[in-house]
Amino acid sequence: MSRRMTALLWRGTGKMQIEETDVPTIGPKEILARPLYSTICGSDRHAYYHGLFAFNPPFSLGHEFCAEIVELGSEVDEDVQGNKLRRGDLIVTEPSVFCGKCYYCRRSEYIQCQSYLWLGSDRTAGGCFSDYMKVDSRVTYKMLDGMTKMQGALVEPGAVGVHAVRRSNVVLGRSVLIMGGGPIGLFALMAAKAAGAEKILLSEVSKFRSERAARLGAQIVIDPAREDIVRKVMDDTKGLGVDIVIDAAGDTKAVKQGIAAAKKHGVYVRIAISAGESSVNFTDIMVKELTVIGSQGYSFWPYLDMSTDFYQTMLMLKDGRFKADDIVTQEYDFENWKEAFEMSGDTEKAIKVAIKARNF
Amino acid sequence: MSRRMTALLWRGTGKMQIEETDVPTIGPKEILARPLYSTICGSDRHAYYHGLFAFNPPFSLGHEFCAEIVELGSEVDEDVQGNKLRRGDLIVTEPSVFCGKCYYCRRSEYIQCQSYLWLGSDRTAGGCFSDYMKVDSRVTYKMLDGMTKMQGALVEPGAVGVHAVRRSNVVLGRSVLIMGGGPIGLFALMAAKAAGAEKILLSEVSKFRSERAARLGAQIVIDPAREDIVRKVMDDTKGLGVDIVIDAAGDTKAVKQGIAAAKKHGVYVRIAISAGESSVNFTDIMVKELTVIGSQGYSFWPYLDMSTDFYQTMLMLKDGRFKADDIVTQEYDFENWKEAFEMSGDTEKAIKVAIKARNF
Amino acid sequence: MSRRMTALLWRGTGKMQIEETDVPTIGPKEILARPLYSTICGSDRHAYYHGLFAFNPPFSLGHEFCAEIVELGSEVDEDVQGNKLRRGDLIVTEPSVFCGKCYYCRRSEYIQCQSYLWLGSDRTAGGCFSDYMKVDSRVTYKMLDGMTKMQGALVEPGAVGVHAVRRSNVVLGRSVLIMGGGPIGLFALMAAKAAGAEKILLSEVSKFRSERAARLGAQIVIDPAREDIVRKVMDDTKGLGVDIVIDAAGDTKAVKQGIAAAKKHGVYVRIAISAGESSVNFTDIMVKELTVIGSQGYSFWPYLDMSTDFYQTMLMLKDGRFKADDIVTQEYDFENWKEAFEMSGDTEKAIKVAIKARNF
Amino acid sequence: MSRRMTALLWRGTGKMQIEETDVPTIGPKEILARPLYSTICGSDRHAYYHGLFAFNPPFSLGHEFCAEIVELGSEVDEDVQGNKLRRGDLIVTEPSVFCGKCYYCRRSEYIQCQSYLWLGSDRTAGGCFSDYMKVDSRVTYKMLDGMTKMQGALVEPGAVGVHAVRRSNVVLGRSVLIMGGGPIGLFALMAAKAAGAEKILLSEVSKFRSERAARLGAQIVIDPAREDIVRKVMDDTKGLGVDIVIDAAGDTKAVKQGIAAAKKHGVYVRIAISAGESSVNFTDIMVKELTVIGSQGYSFWPYLDMSTDFYQTMLMLKDGRFKADDIVTQEYDFENWKEAFEMSGDTEKAIKVAIKARNF
Repeated sequence: MSRRMTALLWRGTGKMQIEETDVPTIGPKEILARPLYSTICGSDRHAYYHGLFAFNPPFSLGHEFCAEIVELGSEVDEDVQGNKLRRGDLIVTEPSVFCGKCYYCRRSEYIQCQSYLWLGSDRTAGGCFSDYMKVDSRVTYKMLDGMTKMQGALVEPGAVGVHAVRRSNVVLGRSVLIMGGGPIGLFALMAAKAAGAEKILLSEVSKFRSERAARLGAQIVIDPAREDIVRKVMDDTKGLGVDIVIDAAGDTKAVKQGIAAAKKHGVYVRIAISAGESSVNFTDIMVKELTVIGSQGYSFWPYLDMSTDFYQTMLMLKDGRFKADDIVTQEYDFENWKEAFEMSGDTEKAIKVAIKARNF
Repeated sequence: MSRRMTALLWRGTGKMQIEETDVPTIGPKEILARPLYSTICGSDRHAYYHGLFAFNPPFSLGHEFCAEIVELGSEVDEDVQGNKLRRGDLIVTEPSVFCGKCYYCRRSEYIQCQSYLWLGSDRTAGGCFSDYMKVDSRVTYKMLDGMTKMQGALVEPGAVGVHAVRRSNVVLGRSVLIMGGGPIGLFALMAAKAAGAEKILLSEVSKFRSERAARLGAQIVIDPAREDIVRKVMDDTKGLGVDIVIDAAGDTKAVKQGIAAAKKHGVYVRIAISAGESSVNFTDIMVKELTVIGSQGYSFWPYLDMSTDFYQTMLMLKDGRFKADDIVTQEYDFENWKEAFEMSGDTEKAIKVAIKARNF
Repeated sequence: MSRRMTALLWRGTGKMQIEETDVPTIGPKEILARPLYSTICGSDRHAYYHGLFAFNPPFSLGHEFCAEIVELGSEVDEDVQGNKLRRGDLIVTEPSVFCGKCYYCRRSEYIQCQSYLWLGSDRTAGGCFSDYMKVDSRVTYKMLDGMTKMQGALVEPGAVGVHAVRRSNVVLGRSVLIMGGGPIGLFALMAAKAAGAEKILLSEVSKFRSERAARLGAQIVIDPAREDIVRKVMDDTKGLGVDIVIDAAGDTKAVKQGIAAAKKHGVYVRIAISAGESSVNFTDIMVKELTVIGSQGYSFWPYLDMSTDFYQTMLMLKDGRFKADDIVTQEYDFENWKEAFEMSGDTEKAIKVAIKARNF
Repeated sequence: MSRRMTALLWRGTGKMQIEETDVPTIGPKEILARPLYSTICGSDRHAYYHGLFAFNPPFSLGHEFCAEIVELGSEVDEDVQGNKLRRGDLIVTEPSVFCGKCYYCRRSEYIQCQSYLWLGSDRTAGGCFSDYMKVDSRVTYKMLDGMTKMQGALVEPGAVGVHAVRRSNVVLGRSVLIMGGGPIGLFALMAAKAAGAEKILLSEVSKFRSERAARLGAQIVIDPAREDIVRKVMDDTKGLGVDIVIDAAGDTKAVKQGIAAAKKHGVYVRIAISAGESSVNFTDIMVKELTVIGSQGYSFWPYLDMSTDFYQTMLMLKDGRFKADDIVTQEYDFENWKEAFEMSGDTEKAIKVAIKARNF
């Protein structure tokens, strides 16, 4: 007889409530984990309020979490870094569900798996707003000694910032414009700073987030509602433009501005998701010999000679290059999930909102 | 008193005729040259028929040419490769007019000069449809022994293909889809083949150009008027897509297809010019982690450890990796320039149309 | 009761003979295979004549082979390319025995496994000079339709050439000096040509191998016993040196020449094995800003967006870019292994010597 | 009649004294400058004590300096960054004397000029230990507002550190071992830190320099006289080795240790000069697939999309990522040059020793 647990189940747009459901059963390479501390992603909000990205209810949303190991699958032995895994260990996990066999999985590019799902997006892949969840040991990391649970939950969104900075090739001496001061934009900002960016500009409408960006290292913060981003960038770069634009805003109309703000031979990195199309003259990309790069999630072994994005993020959260306290702005108990979801959409008050597990 | 010459002068949309005009005077680093054999670029056609790219008449169009040195400026000594230059030498020249002082010129990226002009686009920079023209010695190459005049005229468009293949990083074993079978598409095709591309597909509506593409090495030629490019590419790549798409078509609507035909982590290179905007969901670029690259003209020293695009093209024209005879489909005498321009637009008869100088 | 088979067992320096021994038993991810056609590597010769690289007898040498599947482990399903595997299929296999768990294996860099062995180098990892052998399905490829058994045996050494050319970044337009005209040098030559190398020089003492190199595409062949390699290279490159040196010779004294023959900012790639030390002033590397690169075996997924070295090699053997008939110079029956080994050391008669299996 | 000036003239090994000599005359692209503050390079010491690198006396040594413009050549207009140059401006200059015409100069790789000299190494190219000197405007930079003269003098050695870090590709998350804690090693250390290196180890015999290294950011300092570098590195990296070794020590025997301390697929960068040869088994480089990179001086435009090494260094000196006060340990008046040279060799007291000009 299957064990039962309490979970916040999504049943369709606007329909989510705390219910009883079965504890998931795990396969040989999986781990049964108890989420302790989670944060809300914009995609969770989209699913709840608009039904996007989630089609096969019921299941729990949520994929940013720190969890405790409850049970190990028969073939689980070590984490990604080669650390032994044991019951009670605190872990973080890439929320990737992948086949392990396709063209991309063979290259360890799990996030490009031809049948990719993420945790918290399907009935077979429940998320962290739940008492228990199953995760894949092949993408699981034991948390570093001294990391807090809050830091653990931020590894996933932080890794998105690390990945974008690596994809962009932000290195010593480059100038960067980050579009958007939400959690991902701010992580990209902190990662760019850690990577030696010479000058960092950031554009953001919210006053609250703009101030946070300035505190975290943006030398110039542009309010696109009141200022022309391109003109401001050009004024500050002798008319050349920035070396790298990282678009974490996802405004379909802002793509043109991002492309215009980049230097000839510059780079525009797309990290945000947006539903609609953007109208762009590709001759502009051709004439300036721009490079437009897509940055999706994080990579497992994208770089033969580097730490994974998740591991690198753990190091940076632990030593303060990533400031968790400046990202998590509110914490809610599990029961108050509804207030948490509501707060998470208030860009003048919140950056990232956390939900503590029932038995946190 | 200034010397006079005969030139085909452009005076505005649809207005072009053979006239007498002044022979240009040269500066210390310039060369007075006599064009011998020229070919017509799509941009020449656009200027003549639609007035695009040319605003300051009168002047001669034309920037694809082989010429003979008539007179050397006081500071002209050697060509780009360090060869001595003398009266009577056959030369080819990058048709770039650049300041030599701006951010990009200091990096020898002349084609990105902040006050860039090309020969044949301005009253101060007359083109090759003329008895004489002035060229910049700093981007001039003595033609290789054994090269024909026809090959000389094709160095400029050939270098565009070489540049695109280098920007794309076409290397041993990669699959390539080339969109468009015009002169640039065909040069890109031949360059991709020379660079070790494993499989080359090409899409083209014209039956004449399709056959030429097949003869020059395209393993699969797709007619986008009758077939779905993306489906055809997927069928041929086990559903993965090609490693590299080189868009030499410039169809604003085809950009989406190019992006869809590229593999995850693939590359879409934009080489064509088009006047209008394309509607694209940049989330597609993000999700597949594509790289979109602009390729403009040719580079002078883009690669510390490589031949320039122009020099590489000369080598390839000379030894037959670039087949000049398959590109130039018609030759006209200077006096018959009007027929030449008309023929150059007939995609079922012509690839590249040549005009021989008066005293050829 | 274990099955028995006939094998050519190595028992120490100079001690090798045909004996009866146990057929290996396979694990869940392994395949029992019947080698059909094998070739002799220099390391096999070293083991037999000098005892190098082999310490734990008895076992069969040999790791260049085409084989037939006899039995599949319980978890074996597909080959590296996703093709179904069945009894009777012809296969080639990377002769890598790896832990699958260490830092490098997690990155699919099996050849850098921290407990790496190759097939034919240990009692637990018998080679192909035997009736049966076990291979790892995770590095096994179904042979392409139309490939011959001889081509199959050459995939392993051919992949060493492909890997070196990829590591060297031989691309369109670069000049290459290959040191050594043995099998690896000749594969590197053919791979460099396929990759678009502009000019290829090769140095080799043997007259027989020199002629073969010229036939396979070396434009200039240098005899280092009679000519000064560096002077010859400089004469042919206007005193600049070549872009890339690929050292497949392994002469400890020749390293200096290789470094001297490379252009400033050039590349020297080390592919050969040699027992001794080389005396080199590293200030020479510093002053010329050279890059010295080690190239070891082949990579599995070194390049996110490329074919594996083994697969690329199969394509090239099949379509004739790699000319198997010019590499295999002699074939021997299994019983005549001794003559085969002797012939394999005669650089004036042999390139690569083959041994056909008993029931070939 | 030529103007006269006071200079510290080198006339051969051990022979150096203050004398009267002619003020140099400048060409159209040159600048007559008055050095104000200089520092002593190891190569100056070598020239004085051992006669190395300097053959054509008499002339002044010295190439690390901040100077004031006295007179501009007829064609001098702007500095490298496009700033107007005027009498009295404070400048720093790459001490490169180059032909401007050879293969490398055409690529703006002046430091690889085929007839390269550096300032302070030849009768035609006097150095900064002198009242006046001539410099090339094409490699001259106006000092940034707010920079001190001491910072100006350190731009040259600082740029060597920046260049090495860029050549090494030290980026976010990599581990680095720096061999040698002299001025160049310490600049490499500070540059690696600014570039996001995760962990930095440094080996140095001098206690004084070791402490300085620890203060400037080395997490682990190894004394190679008492500890085994390789073992210490392996202990600290789970037996893997560091990603990058930067050898600023120049000990001919230490090369082997550097190669052994690098991870498989790691990088060993050679920045130091040493007179003798090192004995190395290149098979070690091959087996580990290492990359050995030479790093010489600094590059002018090595990177199309980056600041030059000199400019980047100015930014870092100005904002404190490069701590000038921790590098310059002693200052001497011009008259006391002999004490300055002596002090510069005392590794237990000095890092970098400065000489102030007569009319400082």
